[in-house]
Amino acid sequence: MTLNVGVIGYGYWGPNLVRNYVETPGSQVVAVSDVRPERLCEVQKRYPFIKTSTDNKDLFNDPTIDAILISTPVSSHYELAMQALQVGKHVLLEKPITQQSDQARRLIEEAARRKRVLMVDHTFIYTGAIRKIHDLITSGEIGDLYYYDSVRVNLGLFQHDVSVLWDLAVHDLSIMDYLLGEESIAVSAAGISHIPGEPENTAYLTIFLENNLIAHIHVNWLAPVKIRRTLIGGSHKMIVYDDLEPSEKVKVYDRGIYINDETSVYKMLISYRTGDVWIPGLDQTEALRTQAKHFIECVETGKAPITDGQAGLRVVKLLEAATQSMAKRGQPFEI
Amino acid sequence: MTLNVGVIGYGYWGPNLVRNYVETPGSQVVAVSDVRPERLCEVQKRYPFIKTSTDNKDLFNDPTIDAILISTPVSSHYELAMQALQVGKHVLLEKPITQQSDQARRLIEEAARRKRVLMVDHTFIYTGAIRKIHDLITSGEIGDLYYYDSVRVNLGLFQHDVSVLWDLAVHDLSIMDYLLGEESIAVSAAGISHIPGEPENTAYLTIFLENNLIAHIHVNWLAPVKIRRTLIGGSHKMIVYDDLEPSEKVKVYDRGIYINDETSVYKMLISYRTGDVWIPGLDQTEALRTQAKHFIECVETGKAPITDGQAGLRVVKLLEAATQSMAKRGQPFEI
Amino acid sequence: MTLNVGVIGYGYWGPNLVRNYVETPGSQVVAVSDVRPERLCEVQKRYPFIKTSTDNKDLFNDPTIDAILISTPVSSHYELAMQALQVGKHVLLEKPITQQSDQARRLIEEAARRKRVLMVDHTFIYTGAIRKIHDLITSGEIGDLYYYDSVRVNLGLFQHDVSVLWDLAVHDLSIMDYLLGEESIAVSAAGISHIPGEPENTAYLTIFLENNLIAHIHVNWLAPVKIRRTLIGGSHKMIVYDDLEPSEKVKVYDRGIYINDETSVYKMLISYRTGDVWIPGLDQTEALRTQAKHFIECVETGKAPITDGQAGLRVVKLLEAATQSMAKRGQPFEI
Amino acid sequence: MTLNVGVIGYGYWGPNLVRNYVETPGSQVVAVSDVRPERLCEVQKRYPFIKTSTDNKDLFNDPTIDAILISTPVSSHYELAMQALQVGKHVLLEKPITQQSDQARRLIEEAARRKRVLMVDHTFIYTGAIRKIHDLITSGEIGDLYYYDSVRVNLGLFQHDVSVLWDLAVHDLSIMDYLLGEESIAVSAAGISHIPGEPENTAYLTIFLENNLIAHIHVNWLAPVKIRRTLIGGSHKMIVYDDLEPSEKVKVYDRGIYINDETSVYKMLISYRTGDVWIPGLDQTEALRTQAKHFIECVETGKAPITDGQAGLRVVKLLEAATQSMAKRGQPFEI
Repeated sequence: MTLNVGVIGYGYWGPNLVRNYVETPGSQVVAVSDVRPERLCEVQKRYPFIKTSTDNKDLFNDPTIDAILISTPVSSHYELAMQALQVGKHVLLEKPITQQSDQARRLIEEAARRKRVLMVDHTFIYTGAIRKIHDLITSGEIGDLYYYDSVRVNLGLFQHDVSVLWDLAVHDLSIMDYLLGEESIAVSAAGISHIPGEPENTAYLTIFLENNLIAHIHVNWLAPVKIRRTLIGGSHKMIVYDDLEPSEKVKVYDRGIYINDETSVYKMLISYRTGDVWIPGLDQTEALRTQAKHFIECVETGKAPITDGQAGLRVVKLLEAATQSMAKRGQPFEI
Repeated sequence: MTLNVGVIGYGYWGPNLVRNYVETPGSQVVAVSDVRPERLCEVQKRYPFIKTSTDNKDLFNDPTIDAILISTPVSSHYELAMQALQVGKHVLLEKPITQQSDQARRLIEEAARRKRVLMVDHTFIYTGAIRKIHDLITSGEIGDLYYYDSVRVNLGLFQHDVSVLWDLAVHDLSIMDYLLGEESIAVSAAGISHIPGEPENTAYLTIFLENNLIAHIHVNWLAPVKIRRTLIGGSHKMIVYDDLEPSEKVKVYDRGIYINDETSVYKMLISYRTGDVWIPGLDQTEALRTQAKHFIECVETGKAPITDGQAGLRVVKLLEAATQSMAKRGQPFEI
Repeated sequence: MTLNVGVIGYGYWGPNLVRNYVETPGSQVVAVSDVRPERLCEVQKRYPFIKTSTDNKDLFNDPTIDAILISTPVSSHYELAMQALQVGKHVLLEKPITQQSDQARRLIEEAARRKRVLMVDHTFIYTGAIRKIHDLITSGEIGDLYYYDSVRVNLGLFQHDVSVLWDLAVHDLSIMDYLLGEESIAVSAAGISHIPGEPENTAYLTIFLENNLIAHIHVNWLAPVKIRRTLIGGSHKMIVYDDLEPSEKVKVYDRGIYINDETSVYKMLISYRTGDVWIPGLDQTEALRTQAKHFIECVETGKAPITDGQAGLRVVKLLEAATQSMAKRGQPFEI
Repeated sequence: MTLNVGVIGYGYWGPNLVRNYVETPGSQVVAVSDVRPERLCEVQKRYPFIKTSTDNKDLFNDPTIDAILISTPVSSHYELAMQALQVGKHVLLEKPITQQSDQARRLIEEAARRKRVLMVDHTFIYTGAIRKIHDLITSGEIGDLYYYDSVRVNLGLFQHDVSVLWDLAVHDLSIMDYLLGEESIAVSAAGISHIPGEPENTAYLTIFLENNLIAHIHVNWLAPVKIRRTLIGGSHKMIVYDDLEPSEKVKVYDRGIYINDETSVYKMLISYRTGDVWIPGLDQTEALRTQAKHFIECVETGKAPITDGQAGLRVVKLLEAATQSMAKRGQPFEI
């Protein structure tokens, strides 16, 4: 059985979706739509067997299409996804799932009602690095989680319609949502725009979670160097995840503190532990390949995707609260 | 003419002060006091010519002493400094200048009344790296300042009496105060303690300054790796300052954006500039040596130190506001 | 006027040649040959307008073809290039130019006789990094050259027919030949094979040049990490070229020694100079694009390519001498 | 029982010896000699209980002294060590043990005759890093050894009396001698002096060992950057040892090749293995402390030191052969 997909939007990310759903066994791309005819020319040159159209309706009306992959600007996500669900298609949406949390809720309801798969393309979740970190956390090797700290900065690419939070922090929020497994309680964010009339290009986001866990994300389009580094602190071990390392992306540090509160009636004695470092080998499969397989499997079996509508909704709720907080210089907003 | 100094406190930092004021031409250490006799033994072994005492009063009452250097826990700063000023001594205080901003204000007033030098040991200000960055900023080479972002994390040394803000962020605040030259407007801070009953060991601090400038400081005693890295963004150039680099500490990036708002009625066109990187050679003089010379010069000439009481006060005010904000999950506090 | 080229060999490197000669203004690819029909399918899928053939003769006999690009195993280089020259085509050969220096000499003679361009694809010469280093050396900024030291190691890809010298060191020899501008005098090489019956996978090569200049190349297919780093020492400045750095590939160090031989009748006084480091921005044009333009220009104007047959010959002579030396544990062989 | 030692030579290294033999339980420094009275002043200031003399004989004649530590220029090693042995003292010599291999042989004989300990201060052997690597090799974890490759370069400190081989390569040779456990067969070396009349400041040294093992050492006093990196290749695992890393000095790579010679009658199939990386925690004890304990233990028990006279001799023999080879552009010399 082959999952026949139609892809809406062939801009920056669409070609990656098309290539992977063409090459992954179990799926095939039957049609691509884009309002820009020159983008469809690209499709035709590379994949002469794929139908193309400037009208999305051709995809919705095509009974051979099982699922719609939406790779358009976020402002169109809700409407396109809702139409697709209403004609009985499964849906995969580029991140973030929608502009507003209410929209995500309605998509979740519609998908549930129609028994269709609704998945959001939180791509990082499907990388070998994040899956390895997830294993380390869920196996208990890291111990209790203490903090999650991520820096994602570089020079460019400025967006005109959304702040750097919606562009870059969405990656970290989706990773954090997957890895931490704790409820977010409140958000405090600060940001700044250095170009009059444009959205914030530098932002800092703190998330307070259950169980004394804190997360922090620093995103910046105006940094002189590219940094993609996450620190994850735990009671047993700690992780440094550097996505720019070609192969040694995940380092696990057997470091931490010992607390001995019997040594003194007045104060605890803290001592430090510095053991080995371990750099696990990672699955090198392209994230979108793993994701495509997972989407196909979810459609076939009906099981909920790892990055389902709820995951997409949680990320949008955090972005909404962060945007509000950022407008008030860090005033905390509850989730 | 020689500046005769007495040093109160011979713990972690005191030996560095003594060594530098012994070796710097123009000053001499005549006495050291510490409540711990075993610490004074260390002084006697190494510097048999220095008088030692377990009683601070011996230093205050010694008419041959011109200046008192105070290297004790911050809780004793105010009282010791006030006594020293009141008997007509010049005063150098280890950072932070005092526990409370009111105390700093009173020291400033007393020093002014007595026409004595009041200086705080914001050591980093006297390093070759920070002085070079200061030159780059004041010469206009960096252009308008956009942001100041600092990460200062490592494993240990946990303090029991103060949070990580008062221990580590004080360095960044003093550097920021020196480099940015803008008034702070408000502060938002978030932090967490992972050891019950102990102060925050992980904290994030955002400072909103005049002229659309933002500063952010990340400090952590519980990080698996040591990081000491500051990014400074400007309209012309950007700086990466990595204090762990043995020699290439300061990198100046000829990178940034061009904004062309004539190209479109709807939106600005942003283009990116990526030019050379320059790593200036730095003055290798020990910071405390430069500081000692500056203190001597200020006493001789009566000019205000770079790190005078006002600089110390500004840092304490930021720490106070940050501590309040941290207790309320990032609620902003005005300065 | 368009240079019409035919490409022989569509294996690992051929596709890069085809793409660049298709996309570079002033040239067009009219035909590709390869003995493997499945490789030609790839050509047809991607470039339906290019003729394909399993017989090289179709390219030699095609009067619309001006130049032949040869991207086949080195064992076939001489014969194919000679045939191409003899039917009046210009020739570009993948590195190394030939298996034996005599073959290169004969190609040079034939090209001269026929007034055709003979160029070897020493690709690195056309990168922004090497061109920048060349400018620095020829402008005198580096001063007199002292040494050239290169490390090019990684895990894989083992070759069965040639040693690591012919596979990896050929890059360094071509770079060295371009940058140093001095005659090689002698070669000493050492190498080892860790797999019985296979060629050397680890090798060290020292070249003694005129004017007290030494070059050394370390190549290894069996290293745990990938290293691509070259040190170039000069009397004024020194260069570190790290090809794995994404953008900061070339660093120029204002470091060196001062020699003062008047200070002592017995021995010279050597003092050290440590100044700024400068990381020049580099032209990001793909090397093969620059090379294609240069080949087109050489054909049009008749001027000698930077990487002409003589450059190819000099590299092969060094490889031959190194191979002899390697068999005798480093015994030096004159060039 | 305390080992009473006398130290001859209080220049660059002598103070480290004195400090460690003062502080290590089981030994005490009773006297220091140096021809320079100002150096002895330094001893007196710091260690008022140590006797000082400008005449070595005072140490040889002192019956309370059990062992002599010699930290003088290598040209005086043989004579001082022989005198010390002849009056029945145990001897520790700074590296290299002697200027000539014959001298080392005679010291070994004398020590054996007198039943005295003769040890050479190959300091690196006593670091946590090298001891850990030794454990990894001897436990079989690395498998069969393939190569040992070391780079030890920096700017300065030029020596006037010995080449860079005798100054820097001696470290690598002593490490290699300890780790590899194979007989050296032949040596090929190349080097150059960039200052007329001075010894070679840049050198490359290849050592051919038994069992198809090769070692290579690159030393340079005229490099723009400091590098201290060793690659050790084995059939099971590989090691990267970077001595400039503050804590992650030793990385163990589970990487290598598989050879399957059944797949083809013509050629072997080589495939690559890329597994985890492991960074073991290292014993942080100062090397000289470990060495002092070992010297004390050897004197007490009569067992041969790890770095005994034979180890010193083997290193000098390699240096002698390398010096001869270097004068003949890499001509191999047998050991």
